Amino acid sequence: MTMSIRGYAAQSPTTPLAAHQFERRDPRANDVVIDILYCGVCHSDIHQARDEWGGSLYPMVPGHEIVGRVSSVGPEVTKFKVGDTVGVGCMVDSCQHCSSCNAGLEPYCVEGATWTYNGVDRHDKMPTFGGYSERIVVSDKFVVSISDKLDLKAAAPLLCAGITTWSPLRHWNIGKGSKIAVIGLGGLGHMGLKFAKAMGADVTLFTRSPGKEAEARRLGADHVVLSTDEKQMAAVSRQFEFILDTVPNPHDLNPYLTTLAVNGVICLVGQLQPLDPPVNAAQVLLGRRSISGSAIGGIAETQEMLDFCAEHNIVSDIEVIDIKNINAAYERVITSDVRYRFVIDMASLKAA
Amino acid sequence: MTMSIRGYAAQSPTTPLAAHQFERRDPRANDVVIDILYCGVCHSDIHQARDEWGGSLYPMVPGHEIVGRVSSVGPEVTKFKVGDTVGVGCMVDSCQHCSSCNAGLEPYCVEGATWTYNGVDRHDKMPTFGGYSERIVVSDKFVVSISDKLDLKAAAPLLCAGITTWSPLRHWNIGKGSKIAVIGLGGLGHMGLKFAKAMGADVTLFTRSPGKEAEARRLGADHVVLSTDEKQMAAVSRQFEFILDTVPNPHDLNPYLTTLAVNGVICLVGQLQPLDPPVNAAQVLLGRRSISGSAIGGIAETQEMLDFCAEHNIVSDIEVIDIKNINAAYERVITSDVRYRFVIDMASLKAA
Ligand SMILES: [Zn+2]
Ligand SMILES: [Zn+2]
Ligand SMILES: [Zn+2]
Ligand SMILES: [Zn+2]
Repeated sequence: MTMSIRGYAAQSPTTPLAAHQFERRDPRANDVVIDILYCGVCHSDIHQARDEWGGSLYPMVPGHEIVGRVSSVGPEVTKFKVGDTVGVGCMVDSCQHCSSCNAGLEPYCVEGATWTYNGVDRHDKMPTFGGYSERIVVSDKFVVSISDKLDLKAAAPLLCAGITTWSPLRHWNIGKGSKIAVIGLGGLGHMGLKFAKAMGADVTLFTRSPGKEAEARRLGADHVVLSTDEKQMAAVSRQFEFILDTVPNPHDLNPYLTTLAVNGVICLVGQLQPLDPPVNAAQVLLGRRSISGSAIGGIAETQEMLDFCAEHNIVSDIEVIDIKNINAAYERVITSDVRYRFVIDMASLKAA
Repeated sequence: MTMSIRGYAAQSPTTPLAAHQFERRDPRANDVVIDILYCGVCHSDIHQARDEWGGSLYPMVPGHEIVGRVSSVGPEVTKFKVGDTVGVGCMVDSCQHCSSCNAGLEPYCVEGATWTYNGVDRHDKMPTFGGYSERIVVSDKFVVSISDKLDLKAAAPLLCAGITTWSPLRHWNIGKGSKIAVIGLGGLGHMGLKFAKAMGADVTLFTRSPGKEAEARRLGADHVVLSTDEKQMAAVSRQFEFILDTVPNPHDLNPYLTTLAVNGVICLVGQLQPLDPPVNAAQVLLGRRSISGSAIGGIAETQEMLDFCAEHNIVSDIEVIDIKNINAAYERVITSDVRYRFVIDMASLKAA
């Protein structure tokens, strides 16, 4: 049995998103059915809707920054009840038995996680559809609780942009006394600033655009370095123990490597392409520096982040849109013309 | 005052090494004067003699894998006495007060270490000359003790090839239960196998040349994987927590990245060039893998390694040469035609 769902979908890599009716499974014993209130717009929604990473499945209903209310639960679900405010991020399932899953590192599931959209359910082999829709059905282990103390629409981006920046900061033990930097002031970068500041670090923003000082400081930066200014870059040579690189496109890592202290780590969270221009190995060896990367985060640490956000009243800075304006929003995401994340008010789906 | 020293030098990037007379300083208060018994031949000797890294100083007396006997000491030296068997590696001095030096990480000295040759002494601004010579004068803090239990000629390569592989294995906590790999079976690689095995790890050798199984196992490998064989590579997908990459030239890291487990680290110790072909960021992010590097090692850990070698009777596999054959030896190093390190018997200098 299935239920009929209204949403927005891309029918091919080149068609704009438009209203689309599709089927979701009736809840299995451990499923939670969620009425979607808000869904954030992630840059990876665009990459996948346009098949820029290859292998996209159509029709595609994007969206993996989902906040909603539980409308029903399967008989085995004990953690959630009707009316609970909950979230769903980039994954809706994983193998649940590999070494990664056992370690709470579901994004690195050896058998591959089941992605919230543009994936295939591992049990019934049906395509998965994301949060640009009125309702979603998700295995309870991949649902997280969200405090109603938070501004729920602004909490939606925590499910991807939030956890993607939180996870590496926690993994590399950033905290009081840490001297770190964030590259890029977008959806990911502005969350990196907020988290790193709340964790107690001394935080520098690297940006290519002048005039962002006040804004960066408001978001948590203690210092701003214009990465196009060689003098400013030289002044922070060997300074940072950690750099969170949120840039979504290939860029030259070499100038940033020189700003890492001995044993420093630059962690990529925004790009999946080849590192071109090539990284200079000398800058790696001669400082025992590391180039690393991190993909979203596990379910347990997503809950940990959401609890931290409730405690510290941290949400994203957002611009709310009606779903009928999603294609225009995509264009603005591509030109970084958003402060700092679009969130779709899913009530607008009724009018669309 | 200076003393006149016989050695072998390159007079330019294109001239072969030949006999050369030069001056060394008379010992300062904290200097140790060492009569050189043996000096290993490192690939970086060739890179520098031929100015392949730029900035070479001529005349150049290469050599930084030095074993000898103390022939005199300055009045402030307490740690060494005449007749002691000692070693000198890649550095003869550093600033001694920066954060790296304070942490025992002299290769990463913020002000730059003083290299054993092709460098400039930080006190008298005289060029430094290396171990292809009868005698060397070194600050006592950069001299290490070598047990006479070891075969001294085979101990010489421990001072560079040894510490270069020991330091990262220790830094990344390789030991019992670790599953690691070594890329390349040369001067560095064969030491990597010996150390990793002695530390208790399960060790795989990656090699591009078939027929090395027996040799690799003799040196400490538990498994050998032919990196040109896609099937063998696929069989070790996601297997290793650590890979020690000893290859001295640019090569494709991407096939090796896929053999790293989640959180795995590939550590470069052999090359200083750009990483070309470019590293695929997806392989980094999607496994939280790291590309790192390491440069030789600190003085304290060099001593630690030498003590470990004395305890476990570990030395390099070497081929002893007379210094008059150094230019032919260089050609054989370039074609990897040596098992696994040339060592110059410095007694041959008298006949040269
Ligand atoms: Zn996302
Ligand atoms: Zn799994
Ligand atoms: Zn060397
Ligand atoms: Zn120093």
